[in-house]
Order: sequence, then C-alpha cells, then structure tokens
Amino acid sequence: MRRPIITLTTDFGGKDPYVAEMKATILNISPNATIVDTTHQIEKFNARMGAYVLASASPYFPKGTIHVAVVDPGVGTRREPILIQTKHYYFVGPDNGVLALAARKEQIRHVYRIINRKLMLAKVSNTFHGRDIFAPAAAHLANKKPPAEFGPEIDKIIIPRFARIVRRGNMLIGEVIHVDDFGNIITNLGEKELELMEIDHTVNVRLGNAKLTLRLCRTYSEVQLHKPLALIGSHNLLEISINQGNAAKTFKVESGSKVTLHSP
Amino acid sequence: MRRPIITLTTDFGGKDPYVAEMKATILNISPNATIVDTTHQIEKFNARMGAYVLASASPYFPKGTIHVAVVDPGVGTRREPILIQTKHYYFVGPDNGVLALAARKEQIRHVYRIINRKLMLAKVSNTFHGRDIFAPAAAHLANKKPPAEFGPEIDKIIIPRFARIVRRGNMLIGEVIHVDDFGNIITNLGEKELELMEIDHTVNVRLGNAKLTLRLCRTYSEVQLHKPLALIGSHNLLEISINQGNAAKTFKVESGSKVTLHSP
Amino acid sequence: MRRPIITLTTDFGGKDPYVAEMKATILNISPNATIVDTTHQIEKFNARMGAYVLASASPYFPKGTIHVAVVDPGVGTRREPILIQTKHYYFVGPDNGVLALAARKEQIRHVYRIINRKLMLAKVSNTFHGRDIFAPAAAHLANKKPPAEFGPEIDKIIIPRFARIVRRGNMLIGEVIHVDDFGNIITNLGEKELELMEIDHTVNVRLGNAKLTLRLCRTYSEVQLHKPLALIGSHNLLEISINQGNAAKTFKVESGSKVTLHSP
Repeated sequence: MRRPIITLTTDFGGKDPYVAEMKATILNISPNATIVDTTHQIEKFNARMGAYVLASASPYFPKGTIHVAVVDPGVGTRREPILIQTKHYYFVGPDNGVLALAARKEQIRHVYRIINRKLMLAKVSNTFHGRDIFAPAAAHLANKKPPAEFGPEIDKIIIPRFARIVRRGNMLIGEVIHVDDFGNIITNLGEKELELMEIDHTVNVRLGNAKLTLRLCRTYSEVQLHKPLALIGSHNLLEISINQGNAAKTFKVESGSKVTLHSP
Repeated sequence: MRRPIITLTTDFGGKDPYVAEMKATILNISPNATIVDTTHQIEKFNARMGAYVLASASPYFPKGTIHVAVVDPGVGTRREPILIQTKHYYFVGPDNGVLALAARKEQIRHVYRIINRKLMLAKVSNTFHGRDIFAPAAAHLANKKPPAEFGPEIDKIIIPRFARIVRRGNMLIGEVIHVDDFGNIITNLGEKELELMEIDHTVNVRLGNAKLTLRLCRTYSEVQLHKPLALIGSHNLLEISINQGNAAKTFKVESGSKVTLHSP
Repeated sequence: MRRPIITLTTDFGGKDPYVAEMKATILNISPNATIVDTTHQIEKFNARMGAYVLASASPYFPKGTIHVAVVDPGVGTRREPILIQTKHYYFVGPDNGVLALAARKEQIRHVYRIINRKLMLAKVSNTFHGRDIFAPAAAHLANKKPPAEFGPEIDKIIIPRFARIVRRGNMLIGEVIHVDDFGNIITNLGEKELELMEIDHTVNVRLGNAKLTLRLCRTYSEVQLHKPLALIGSHNLLEISINQGNAAKTFKVESGSKVTLHSP
C-alpha cells in the first residue's frame, strides 16, 4: 500500500526545534507517513507568500496527499483551525488564507473546523498549534480518520487578498506575487493577460521606477549574461528575470509591488 | 514493524556535503531507518544551544528513537564519543554537554563510551566523527545492536553549565537560554518561578538596559501589533516577545543574557 | 527489498516551491523512493561547487543510489540532459560539468542523452528541467527502467575546469576548491602533493596576501583557540582552518583562489 504523504509549509525557519516537534508528533500517530518539507522559509507572518508557495507546489503531489501550512500570526485567537477536503487533497492549517489559494485550484468538497480534542495532542498550547493541532490532524487523516470527525462543516473560508488585475486604457496593472531565491520577479499576469495586451515578442513593463522594454524569451539564457528578459515561467506566469543575475534586487521590487504592462 | 527513527542535530549548516554523508552512512547500515533533521543551524560550536534544541524536540519523538547530536569543537581530542540509554531513547554524540540536557529530562539508564572499532566506519578521520563514529553507532542501534557492545559503561557525563536561577531580595535572576527565529526570548524561568514571585497578570522584567512592565498573555496577539508581551511558551518557559516583531533584536538580547524579574 | 535512494543537489535555495515540486514528481512515479537532500544551497549557477559537493557526498551512499544534480544556468538551451551510469550509481542532470567529478571518481560505464519524452512530465517547461526532466528520469531509474531507454548513448561529457596543480621551483600552486560553512579552506592538494613537497610537520603556504607557517595537525583543537592550522581533512585534502574561527573570512579567500605551498 502507498505510504501517506504529508507536506509541511511554515514560516518557522531552520534553527529551532519546532519543525522537528511537528514531525515527531506526526510519526507518533502515523509511523508510516512520508513527510516532505515544502519550505520553512516563508517570510514570518506572510500568509500570502505561504499561500503562493503552497498553491505552486501542491498540485504536483500524488492524490491523497495531506498538505499542512502554518503561517499563523493569530495563533490561539479567534481564527479557526480548519481542514479542507478537495478533489485530490486535504489541506490543514489556520483559516487565515494560507490554504485558500491551493484549495481553490482544486474543487473544494468540504471544509471542517477542527474542534475534536481527541484528535489533538493531550495538552494544547496557545502558541504552537502546528505541533498541537495541525500535525496530529494531518497524521489522523493519514490514518484514514474521516474528515467529518474533526468538527462541524463550515461553508466559508478566508481568501487572501491579492491585487486584482486592472485594465486602464492601454495599460494592464498587476502585482508581484513572489520573488524567488534567484531574484526572479513572478507576477500574477499569465498567458491570457499577454494575449489580451497583444504582447508577442516584446514586453513593455513598468516596475517601480524602471520602464523596461524586454524580449519575451523561452529561456533565461536567450539574452546576454546579466541582461533582463521576460518569460512565461514554469508556473505559467509572467516573470521578469536577469540572466544569471538578481532581477528583484536590480529593480528594487518585492512581493506586492505593482507591475504595469503597456501594449506595444 | 515500526521503522527505526534517527534524528540529527548539528552545527553543520546547509551548504556542505557533511549532513548527506551522515545520512548515507546511516542508510548503508540501516536501510529502513527514517532520518529526521532536528536542525543543522545550531550556532557553530555552541553546545549549549544544541543541548537546548535537542532537549526541546526529543521528548516528542516515539519511544526507541535514536537522537544524534554533533556540535563538536573538540572532535578528535580527548572528549569521548558516548551513547546514553534513557527510559525511552538513545542519545549519541560527543561527551561535551550537548546530549546531557535531553538525557536528564528522561531517566538515564546507562552511559557507554563508544570504542568498538567494528561499529565505526572502516576509516575513522580525526575531524568528522559525525560521519565516522556517530552515524554508524546510531545505525547499528537502529539494527538492535545491544548498547553494551559499543564500549565500557561509564558513570559520569559532562553537563552544560547554564546560569542558576538566583533569588536576591524581591528579584529573581535567570538567563536567556534561546532566541528563536521569530526573535522570541526564551528564558530558563518557568511557571514555578512566576508563582514564587507571585506574578499573575503583570511581569516586571529587566532585559539588558530595558526595564519592562509586560502583560502576561496567553497568545502573542493579545497585545497590539508590534507591542511587547510576556507569556508561558509552548515549552512551559517564560518568553518575552513582540507581537509580529523581533523581541531579541529590539531589546538587544542574546542567548546567555541575564533576565531579572521583580516582584510586583 | 531495499527502497531506492535518490539524492538531490541544487542551487534552488530553501524558500521556494521548486525542491518540493521535484520531490512530488519523484513520489508520483516511484512512491517507495527515499529522497535525501545533499544540499540546495549551492551558490547560484556555480556548477563547480555543485560538482565538488556531489563528488564529496556521493561515494558514501549505498550502491544503486541515483544522484540528481541541478545547477543549470543554461536550462532550456543546447546543453543536454544526461544520465551517467557508473559502477555503483546513476547520475542525472545537465551536461555542464556538475555530474562529471562525481562520475569520474567511479568507473563510468555508459552515458546517455535523455530525450525520451515518455519518461518526462507530460508538459516540459523551458525553465525547470529539474522538475520536468531530471526528477522523472531519477524516479523511472528507481523503478528499474533500463538506462538505454532514456536516449542514445554518447561518448563525451563536459568536465568542469579546475586549476591544474603546477610545480614551479620549490613551489606547488593549487586552488581553493571549496570553503565550507565553518570557513575551512579546502584545497585541491592532497597527501601526495604534501609528500612531493616533503612537507611533514610544518606547512608554508601563501593564501592571497598572507604568508603563513602552519603546523600540520591531526585535529582542529591541536592549536590554541582562534589560531590557524593546516590538516588533511575528512576528504583527504589539505585544509587551512582556524580553531573555532573562520579561516576563509580571516584570510579573505574564496573558492577558486590560488594556494601556493613552499617546500620547507
């Protein structure tokens, strides 16, 4: 039988015992689980970044994977611990938007509040629900516990707010949704938006104070070393990059910055 | 049958081949072992920090888990490689205090010096006992090798020195034992010490030059954004934190700094 | 039966979804694979550093291990995806030198270009062959797919260029091949070169502007705290180190710097 897979996405960083405590808790309850780290380097408290990374990685996992995300500035307060069942996956974490982007890519089947104390650690702290609530929930799901046993079904979840894509005359205004470790600037504009703007070979884009005319490439190395370019990246979104350089640093852009496309 | 679990706690960082060499060595000897990283980001040579992190994480693991910790500035010198058997776990590493805090939380049953060359790599370097001695020892333990076969029993281990908690008049003086990646300041003062000082709602605390009067909260977000607070954290120790901020940077505190509580 | 082992060595860093997408892809195809991270902290685009780290770690793994390395500035261009079969291992990645050092330590049996679309993800992007080509190749190898099915055999691979060791009068000139996270300066000079120079107890070495006379030690702590030393490290190469200090920062040395030994 296939071993259940549990993924972890957090803002816990790499130096503390917290991630290991979550893994220990999972292995206590579900010894055969395969645990995969998505990342623990989400910017502290940045649920939007957590949502983006989880939504990018989760669709590649086998059916039945249980995705746990803990970016949880409101831990212990009124925000609810939830469990979302989609067509292929389970998502477990706080109801603050961190799960929503990934879950909505799939068809959401059911959402449950997690309130069943028997499916938590015996002692639940107010400050570490990752270990005390979410890790046990994931492990019990891995053990085939029916989702309805975790708590009552609810019909609404919190959706993270990303800027809408706005058209203004010959401009299309979008947003940087992620800056990756290479400094690639990933926007919320996709192939559809490029078509709408009749962009084909050349992208006219404003990023902060910089006005750039960029070649729309297939690969990073189609332009000369250290030159900027545009491409549709591996997640089908418009990226502004520098061949073997760091575009985000060069153009002083961060997640949330505005991106404006001008039609040719 | 349950697969044996081996945890690794080191100061090796993330960019070198060293951790992978330890894992490779383990998988050669014990192919079914599940290896869990606690952290490899212990401050270089800081056995006290290693001891704290290991003691925090280890109790959450299933019985029979083998914990390896390598923070080992004296590698290749007179400090001894040891194996500690407690009620529930094995601990493997250098006898420099890094294992002691975790082992003493449990009941220590036996301590052995590791001297049996047959249970090490064929060639033992002077500078990398993590790979050549500790990883093989852990893997052989995972294979049910009896601990007494590793070497002679010894009756004393080195205990890391943390500041004693001292009472002086209406003050209680303790120590910062860890600063986590969020900047939370974790002290060696627990619920018992707060009771002793009759602290209930408000904590009067001196941290470096700062004299603070803090609300004793249940959660980080009980105070306003970016305001400081005190709470009993998820390991039952007094923490000084800032809601969605970095308390250690704000108050210029590091591991080892003094913390003074004043009774109300 | 032994579970297949797949190792991953990349320059992807720790904050993005990329590594998780590779792991997800592997687990989809080969659910029983054990995945071991070598490191994802190779310097961006530094195939030489990737080659060094992979060549250091790979020989410790069990026979049959599949090593994937993705440091791939030329992704999507003419550089070829390849699969190298050696006596004990498979190596999968771009043909830019990153695999060559490790593969040549073993006996290279066959090299194949990876062109069989059926053994890739259904949609292959131009910018992320780690996920779309190399991860699936590794997973299919783990499932015992014969290497010849991936594509045509080729007879040449790209070898990374490291400086030759040059003798000039009473000097031997080598190169820093790696600076580890402790700041240890690892050179391409081994025991053979030390013998050639009749170096025994004392090493006369020039590093950048510094001329040093160092004791050849067995362990780091044979010299006083914060003092420099030389030793043959755990990979049998000459290292210049500082006892509990950072030699590379102190002597302003980086990977690629020249190292000159003078005979006594």
